Parts: sequence; structure tokens; C-alpha cells
Amino acid sequence: MSLPIVVVNPNSTQAVTDGIDEAIEPLRLEGGPPIECRTLAEGPPGIETEEHSSAVVKPLCELIRSCEANASAFVIACYSDPGLHAAREATKRPVLGIGESAMVTALTRGERFGILSILEASLPRHRRAVRRAGLEARFAGDVPIGVGVTGLSEKDKVHELLEVGGLRLRDELGADVVILGCAGMARYRKSLQEALGLPVIDPTQAAVTLAIGAVRLP
Amino acid sequence: MSLPIVVVNPNSTQAVTDGIDEAIEPLRLEGGPPIECRTLAEGPPGIETEEHSSAVVKPLCELIRSCEANASAFVIACYSDPGLHAAREATKRPVLGIGESAMVTALTRGERFGILSILEASLPRHRRAVRRAGLEARFAGDVPIGVGVTGLSEKDKVHELLEVGGLRLRDELGADVVILGCAGMARYRKSLQEALGLPVIDPTQAAVTLAIGAVRLP
Amino acid sequence: MSLPIVVVNPNSTQAVTDGIDEAIEPLRLEGGPPIECRTLAEGPPGIETEEHSSAVVKPLCELIRSCEANASAFVIACYSDPGLHAAREATKRPVLGIGESAMVTALTRGERFGILSILEASLPRHRRAVRRAGLEARFAGDVPIGVGVTGLSEKDKVHELLEVGGLRLRDELGADVVILGCAGMARYRKSLQEALGLPVIDPTQAAVTLAIGAVRLP
Amino acid sequence: MSLPIVVVNPNSTQAVTDGIDEAIEPLRLEGGPPIECRTLAEGPPGIETEEHSSAVVKPLCELIRSCEANASAFVIACYSDPGLHAAREATKRPVLGIGESAMVTALTRGERFGILSILEASLPRHRRAVRRAGLEARFAGDVPIGVGVTGLSEKDKVHELLEVGGLRLRDELGADVVILGCAGMARYRKSLQEALGLPVIDPTQAAVTLAIGAVRLP
Amino acid sequence: MSLPIVVVNPNSTQAVTDGIDEAIEPLRLEGGPPIECRTLAEGPPGIETEEHSSAVVKPLCELIRSCEANASAFVIACYSDPGLHAAREATKRPVLGIGESAMVTALTRGERFGILSILEASLPRHRRAVRRAGLEARFAGDVPIGVGVTGLSEKDKVHELLEVGGLRLRDELGADVVILGCAGMARYRKSLQEALGLPVIDPTQAAVTLAIGAVRLP
Amino acid sequence: MSLPIVVVNPNSTQAVTDGIDEAIEPLRLEGGPPIECRTLAEGPPGIETEEHSSAVVKPLCELIRSCEANASAFVIACYSDPGLHAAREATKRPVLGIGESAMVTALTRGERFGILSILEASLPRHRRAVRRAGLEARFAGDVPIGVGVTGLSEKDKVHELLEVGGLRLRDELGADVVILGCAGMARYRKSLQEALGLPVIDPTQAAVTLAIGAVRLP
Repeated sequence: MSLPIVVVNPNSTQAVTDGIDEAIEPLRLEGGPPIECRTLAEGPPGIETEEHSSAVVKPLCELIRSCEANASAFVIACYSDPGLHAAREATKRPVLGIGESAMVTALTRGERFGILSILEASLPRHRRAVRRAGLEARFAGDVPIGVGVTGLSEKDKVHELLEVGGLRLRDELGADVVILGCAGMARYRKSLQEALGLPVIDPTQAAVTLAIGAVRLP
Repeated sequence: MSLPIVVVNPNSTQAVTDGIDEAIEPLRLEGGPPIECRTLAEGPPGIETEEHSSAVVKPLCELIRSCEANASAFVIACYSDPGLHAAREATKRPVLGIGESAMVTALTRGERFGILSILEASLPRHRRAVRRAGLEARFAGDVPIGVGVTGLSEKDKVHELLEVGGLRLRDELGADVVILGCAGMARYRKSLQEALGLPVIDPTQAAVTLAIGAVRLP
Repeated sequence: MSLPIVVVNPNSTQAVTDGIDEAIEPLRLEGGPPIECRTLAEGPPGIETEEHSSAVVKPLCELIRSCEANASAFVIACYSDPGLHAAREATKRPVLGIGESAMVTALTRGERFGILSILEASLPRHRRAVRRAGLEARFAGDVPIGVGVTGLSEKDKVHELLEVGGLRLRDELGADVVILGCAGMARYRKSLQEALGLPVIDPTQAAVTLAIGAVRLP
Repeated sequence: MSLPIVVVNPNSTQAVTDGIDEAIEPLRLEGGPPIECRTLAEGPPGIETEEHSSAVVKPLCELIRSCEANASAFVIACYSDPGLHAAREATKRPVLGIGESAMVTALTRGERFGILSILEASLPRHRRAVRRAGLEARFAGDVPIGVGVTGLSEKDKVHELLEVGGLRLRDELGADVVILGCAGMARYRKSLQEALGLPVIDPTQAAVTLAIGAVRLP
Repeated sequence: MSLPIVVVNPNSTQAVTDGIDEAIEPLRLEGGPPIECRTLAEGPPGIETEEHSSAVVKPLCELIRSCEANASAFVIACYSDPGLHAAREATKRPVLGIGESAMVTALTRGERFGILSILEASLPRHRRAVRRAGLEARFAGDVPIGVGVTGLSEKDKVHELLEVGGLRLRDELGADVVILGCAGMARYRKSLQEALGLPVIDPTQAAVTLAIGAVRLP
Repeated sequence: MSLPIVVVNPNSTQAVTDGIDEAIEPLRLEGGPPIECRTLAEGPPGIETEEHSSAVVKPLCELIRSCEANASAFVIACYSDPGLHAAREATKRPVLGIGESAMVTALTRGERFGILSILEASLPRHRRAVRRAGLEARFAGDVPIGVGVTGLSEKDKVHELLEVGGLRLRDELGADVVILGCAGMARYRKSLQEALGLPVIDPTQAAVTLAIGAVRLP
């Protein structure tokens, strides 16, 4: 049997890991690679700054090295893709970042992608990521909902904020595919997709999909 | 059980369809969507010109409409992505083009992708596709091997030509991930990957992977 | 005497061909190449989808090949440039697409061009054409007037819609040159130009102009 | 009868003006606008530096203003497009620069244009012009032949240098359309085109063509 | 002791030169290069058109050549960077343009820069400068305040207009660093910076800073 | 007196800090801000991987916060700009990264910059930095010399390797300004500049120059 795909939540909030675990359940297929979710104990409750993002890289790489022999691929489950390129230097296994994976998947589902972010402070970070990926020509815009990682569990409020933001991306900024800009928003994907009438991409699901491909076709 | 992903080979060469069928075998997972491969009877033996590429769009769209009710997603298995946007207008199901899928997948496996093409005449078409996708900043180059679609079965010769081309992409043009620029090259992927020491992406496998994600996360 | 420039209207609406014929009248110069307009019998009444656009390519290329010996150049008179690159592979004669010709001509008349389109559904197609041409940096925006090809004859209504759209391109999106995004809008060019105070480019006129240059300087 | 298109050679070398006059002869059509060529007395013998280029702007604008009432359009016949935007501010008539016109015309004849320049020192100037026009994605390269403006009359030598440069553009840099990067190279266009098997664009011819369109469709 | 950095105000308005002289006072450091400001007698009262911009190039280059032996570097103190590349060909000394210097400095203080311009007519000129510099991806927008060079001394009015424009750049166009788009606005920098809560770059100060570096590290 | 500019060498090799200290000596001006160089005790001997780069961010930010009250600006003296954006979130003081500062300074000294890197492994990291900065259009290429940070003290060998690499940047890749792609190469700047006949930018000197400007014009 295949070694598992290891999905690492680099923040220490177990509820986020649980949400990720649930979100990727449809991608656990008999005969396909097992998928294990882990919480990075050393991470902060939520990765909301550049410093948070950098601070998890070292323990993340150590975790990856420590379980390389028992993993077929890795997914870094934070939209900022902390340590993505460091991890790729640290292991020969495929490493997928959920931000990058969401963007490239969105390219196959629409002309221009919009991002729904947690906080205003995420926007320059995301914009740099878009430029770093060379995807500026396909980027419609980024709308923050003003809720931090740990506040994402307040369902009604968050759903409404995502819908308002999604409509702005669609109607004012010209997005025709929407990315959830945080690993902790997966539960809102389907209802948001219906409300907007546009494909909505959960980044962890996008990354795990790509990881399955990489593992099945080594 | 899920409706099948329908992979359409828009050329009429059954041997290419058979190669595709074999190439995507590792992505047929119990519990995952079935994957059916079809040959477009109306297609030419190989799609080697812009006119070939356009001529298949109408029968392709008709095929897609005729089996929409019995398909969960479609993959257009020609590197030129003929009819990709027409098909997306023709059906609500996700439609993946293998050229586009290969490029976006390559973005997650290296900094700059190179393409191994069949014929020199493909190069302007591919370059337009790269620009149309907005991916110029990640494109290293395109090397033709000088063999048409129906000549791809000559194993030893083709393998050697791909390796020579791949080394040129890697050593002269700076590619660190290589795309097979034709649906009929899948059988060479693994050995080429070993020879180059770089990830090599088969476009149909890339598209089917993305289709699985889209089907499992509707 | 020179062989004629053949302008092909790839939709089957004779009224559109007649409008084109009238629009290019000022470019019929004594001593210059004759200009003949033809309707593609196999075309749909209007090219409004990607599938329409692809479906005309084969008969268009056949028409071009059949009259290559009696033509000095070809103009494909649909803003979507259907079969432009196929036609260039099919004949050694210069082939001008009206969409491409309008954009490049606009580059010489202003800093950033805006497009007035027929239908909202045209916008992603146009945006892909802008990217494919590598002209993103000069593109201000695209405003649809919500009228299909066959509705373009309702003069008062169309004129007003074009003016409203043109003002939006000028005042909100920063365009300083405007392109009529359909072959059937030529009659509105001059009055719109006066209303906006900006150069307005009819795409067929732009393409025929470039064709004259190519024919006179073979 | 139409007012003439005034083509201004901003250098003071009458032989260059004469060459321009001859080059645009095929564009003088009965019923079309007359085309007059003028030499800017105040210009240097050849525009070979940025300072030359700027120094002619004032007398050029004065010339344009002085004959605006008797001209239908202006062409600035130096590949550096000196004073192009100044002239556009100075007159309501269409003003075409030959460098800009050559580039946009080349976009309709190939995928990537190469430039044959006079001197190595022209290259940064041309590269800035490509970027300023936003056409980087279509630019293949620029090869200097090492001959100044006044040396362009040495036919055999110049022809050979252009051919060597053109082959380099075609075979090493991937150009499939070639621009003559100086107003004084027109006489070499046809033979070079045959030698290269690629379209070769003379910039003044390109600009006059666009001017005819602008004048006939005011 | 070091030769001076010569800052040339290419317009003939002494009050602008005086303002520049005052603005760069904090960069006159003991042990650092002296900084001399000169007014170009041949310049117009304000450089507000492309023709103005070109017309000063010749006297500017002459001035530069005449004092090259007594200068360590040159700064061209007009936001349009008139003669920047001509001057670089005319002297071996480093030449800084204040427009270019402001843009590159802004890249180190924020993600996307906005420009506060004098007149609406400046906008296409500035946009061309952004493209020419290849900085489109970092450009947020340009807001004119509707005041010419000689009107910049009306303090209260200008301050208010700059603040309104700056807020528009920040809140509507997404700029997080603001450039004063004229050499004559330096006196408003600090108060505007406080009002906006964003870094505000005076272009002459930016250029003189870079000149000091170039002079101290020859 | 002004608070000092604090230059942090994020690797722990004191010899590199000493070299930096010497390199920026010409920028210590009477009346200007003092400049203090510090070694980050927690850093690795050389930052040669993405993981190294991330691992220093946390101690770097802590250092910055701990001395914010006693610093006027910060310079992060590693070409990979580790923690640049994290540091900018951590302090209100200006923070300059030497990689970013070198690139923007190079934009004012030539058309296209080349980079001389230590190791081949740096190239993808640098390329991502170029894209992230949006400066792809000005980037000529990157040549590694194959020597790690701690090997940079072998003068003769390193000088020769830099010259060979610089000639390749100039003659094959078209660079007209060269950046030293490591904080530890400053001692080779002047001789390399003479050998190449092109401006050579030391990144730390570039960053300290910009810091002086930011400090003097708060």
C-alpha cells in the first residue's frame, strides 16, 4: 500500500486541523494514498503575519525530514505557503503548498481568480505571492473578511461575510473563480459556490488533489 | 457510484487513445470516479495544425453534449487544448484541457517549465497558449523532436529524441520541470524523468488528476 | 491590376457583409487593390460563442484555399479572429484578423484601448485574445452593450448604448482610444468618435488598411 | 482632394529622404492621399544618440504646427520615434511614428519580431521603446549591423550585414518577422525578405500605411 | 574634498530651484559631497508637455558637459526625467532622474506606488514612464491635482488637493506608498505623510540620496 | 545626534560582518547617521538555503524589536532578504533588504541587471525574488560562481570567478549593470567594475544608501 500523503497544518489550532481533515475526506479513496493530517505543535494559533509564517519553517522542515521515510508527499496547509521552497529543498518527496495549488487550480476553472482573505494585513502577502508565482495577469483581486483564523468557526457570521466578499469579487472586480484564502474556510465552500454561481476553490482540497496525482504517478 | 470522467482523444488514432487509457490507469482508484477514454471518430489521425485543432471542436462539443448526463467531467486529451473554451460554454461539467493542466501542474513542481513538442510547427501554437494563459514568466522554452503523432510509437528513436530535447531544456534553457507536449508520449515519462533528474509531467495524467479533484469536490 | 483583397464575413448574415462592404468603401482607391467582401455560407447568423468561432474555421480555410490564386490578401471579418492562425497556415498570402488589427492600430492612437463588445459572454474571449496578443499592458477594459450581432441594426438604440459604454470606458476605465468589438458596428464609428472625443477604431477598416499595405509592399 | 500625408525625415540627410520617398511610392494611389516627404533642415545628418533624438523635437513640432492646415496626417520617419508624443500633443492630426508602426504591424505578421539596428548604441534605446510600448512579450531580439545612417548606401556591404543579422534573429533568437530598424534601409527589404523567408517590415512603409487608413477614415 | 553633485532644475523658475535647494538640505552632510542646485536658463517656466520635456534636452546636455569636470554626479530635477538617457550618453558621471529615482525608492517602502501629478495631461506621460521602466506590476495609479508648476506655491490650496488625491490613491486605488509627481512639491511631503499614514517620497530627495551613494562608492 | 542605522548580518560569520562594516565605511559621514553592524548570533555560518533564510527570521525580528528604540532604520544584510517583510511588520522604522535595494539601485544605472551568485542553488531563490519584486522585464540573468559564503575570502580565486561570471553576464546575457549577489563580496566590487567596464552594485552599500535617505528625510 502507498505511503500516506502527510498534510501539515502549521498552526497549532487543532480545530483547524480537524476542519482540514474533514475537508479532504472526499479525497480519501480506496486504493488511493492514505491522507494523514498533523498539527505543527510549534506553530502559533493562527499564521497571520509574515513573522508567523517564517517562524514555522524550521519545525516544519524538521517534521518533514523526520517522517520523510513514511510519507509519499507533503501538503503545507496554510494559505501563505510557509516554508514551501524550504521544504522542497528538505525532501525529495513532492511538496504542495495550498496557496500555490489553489491559484493554479483556479486557472483551470475561470479566467481571473479572486481571493477571500481573513485579514486586511494578508493582502500585501498575497499580492507578493501572486507576483512571485508570475500570475498577475490572472488575478482579479483580494477581499478581506476581517476575521482571524480562530474566529472562522462562527458559522453564520463568517458565511455572510464570505458571501458579501465573494459578490464583490464577482461583481466589482471581475473574478469568475474564487479562492478561499485560508485553510480554515473549507466548510463554507459548497454553500458559497451556490450563492455566487462561480467555482469556489478550497486550497487544501486543491493541494491534496495535486498530491494524489504526484503520488500515483511517481 | 460516481459518473465517469470522460477523456476524449480528439484525434482518430485508436493507438493514441489506448496509450492514454494505459497512462491514466494509476488514477483509476476504487471509490474514485471511473475514467472512460473515447476516440473522436471525426478527428484527423493527429492534430498537427491549427486547422486540425479547430475542425474537431464541433464534433467534440456534440460528443460532450450527447454524454453530459452520463459524465462527471471531461478531459480534452490533445496538447493544443482544441475546443477547451467552447466545451466550457457547452457544458456545466468541469472541462480540463491537457495542455493547460500540464502547465499549471508544472508550476507546482519547478520554477520554469520546458515543453517537448512533436513538430517545429507546434511552437508558435504553444507560445500563444503560454501567453493566453498568462504564464510567460514561468516558461523556459520549447524543443521539438521532429516526430509527428503517428510516429510516436517508435520507442527507441522517440526515447532518445526526448532525452536529447529534455537535456537541452534543462541545460541550455534553464527548465527545471518538463512537460510532454503531446498526449501520445506518456509511455516515455518515467524513463525520461530518470534520465533528466527533473519532474516530467504527462499532460493527460495532469488533467485527469485535476478532474478527479473537481468531481470529488463538486 | 492587383488581385483583390478578399474580406470574408464568417457569419452568414448578408446584412453584416453589406455593412462591411460599405464600411471599407473609403479604402477602395483607384490604383489600389480591389476589395471584395464575401459571406461564409456555412457560418452561423452571428458568431457569439467559442463554438461558433471554431465551427467556421474549416469552411473558412476551404474558402481561402479555393480562392488563394485570385486573392492578394485575406481579411477575416469577425472580431473573434476565428481561424486566424489556421488561415495563416493554409495560405502564403497575408491574413489579417480584424480583432488583432484593431488592437494594434489602437496602439498608435492612444495609450490604453477599451473595447465595446456585443454581449457579456464575449468578455472572457476578448480577454484571452488580449493576453494571447501580449497586449495586457495597454488594455483598459471591455464594456458589453448587451445586443447580439443581428440586433446591431436598431440604430438609435445601439448608438445610445455604444455612447454610454464608450463614456464608461473613457471616464471610469481610463481608455483614450476605443475599439468597436464587432464587425457589424462600423456605421456608428464616426458619430461615436464625435460623442466621445476619442479615436474610435472600426476593426474591419483597420484590417483592410493593413492588408493594403501588405499587398502594395509584397 | 485630400490634404497630403506629410512624412518628415528628422535628419538632414537628403539622400535618406530620397530613399524614403522612393520606398513609399507604392503607397501613392490615385484617389488616395498624396504623400509628401520633407527633410528637417535643423536635424543632424543621422539620429544616432538620445540627444540627437531629443534635439529635433522642437523644430519638428514647429514644422508640424506650421503645416498642420495643409496636412492630413504626419509620419515621423526615424526609427527612434523622436517627438512622437510631443507631436501628438502639438496637433490634432494623426501622427505616426515609424518605430511604433513597424512594431505593431509586425504583430500581425508573426509571433515574435526581431529588429535589425544600425549601431550597438541603438539597442538600449530600442529596448526602452519596446517596454514603453508594452510589447516585451512579442520581442525576440535586436541585432546591430555596425553601420551608421550615412553608411547605409554601401549596397553590397549593407545587404550582406543585414542578411547575417537577419539569420541570427531567425535562427538563434527565434524571430519570425523582422523589422528594419532605420528609415534608411528600405531598399534592402525585398531581397532580405527573400533571403530570410520571413516577412520583413520597413518602418516608414508601415507608418504610411497606417496613416492612409487614418486619413481615409477620419 | 569631493566634487559636488549638481542638481539641475530644467525649468527656468528660480522659485522651484529654491524649493529643491531647501528640500535637499537634510542630505548635505559634512564629509559628504556638496550639492549644488542650478536653474536651466533655457528651460520653460514649467515642464508640462512632452515638447517642453524634449526642448530642454540639448541645453541640459550642454550644461552637463560644460561642468562635467567639476561634478561628481548629476540629478535632473524634473519628474518627467527629460534627457535622462541623453545625459547618460553625454557623461560618464552617474546621472539620476528624479522620476525614476522616486519609483525605485518607492519599491522599497511599499507594495504599490501611487503618483500625485500636477495636471491631467501628465498622466499618459507618467504611464509611459512606468511601462518604460518595466514597473507596471507595482503601479497603483496616478491622480492629478489640477495645478500647474507655477501654481504650486499656493500652500493651503495645494496641501488640501494633495491630501484629497493621496486619500484616493490610498483608499480607492490601493497605493501604500505615494510619490510626489513634481519637483516643486517637496514642502508638502511631511505633512502629507502624516495625513495619509503612508510613506511619501519626494523625487528630488530620492535622486539625491542615490547620487550620494553613487558618489561615495565610485 | 541621529540614532544609528543598524545593519544586521543574519549569518553568524563575524568575518562577513567585518567585511560589511568595511564596505559601508564610505557611507559613514559626519553629520549623517551612525551605522552599526551586528552579527545575528543565532544565524547559520552562511545563508545558503531557503530553510536557513526562514530560520533567521524570528531571532532577526526579536533583535529588531529589542533595539527599535535605539535605531533609526534597519538593513538586513543578506542577499536573500530574509525576514524583510516580517521585519517591516515588526517595526515602524524603515527596513531595507540588500537584495531588493541592489535591484532597485541597478535600475538607475543600466537597462538590464545581471546577478553574480554564490551557488547554483541560489538561482531559483533569486528568480523568485525578481518575480516577487515585479522586475522580470529588467532582469538579464544570474551566474553562480560556485563558492559558498565562507569561501568568499579566497581573494584571487574569487576575483577570477567573478570576472568570468561578469563577462558572461555582459557578453552573453546582455547585462549592462551587475549586482554582487551576496553580502560578502563587497571587497571585489571596484576591481570587478574596472574589469567589466560596467557599474557593479554592492547590495549592502545600496541598502545603506537608501537607509540614509530614509533617515534624513523621516
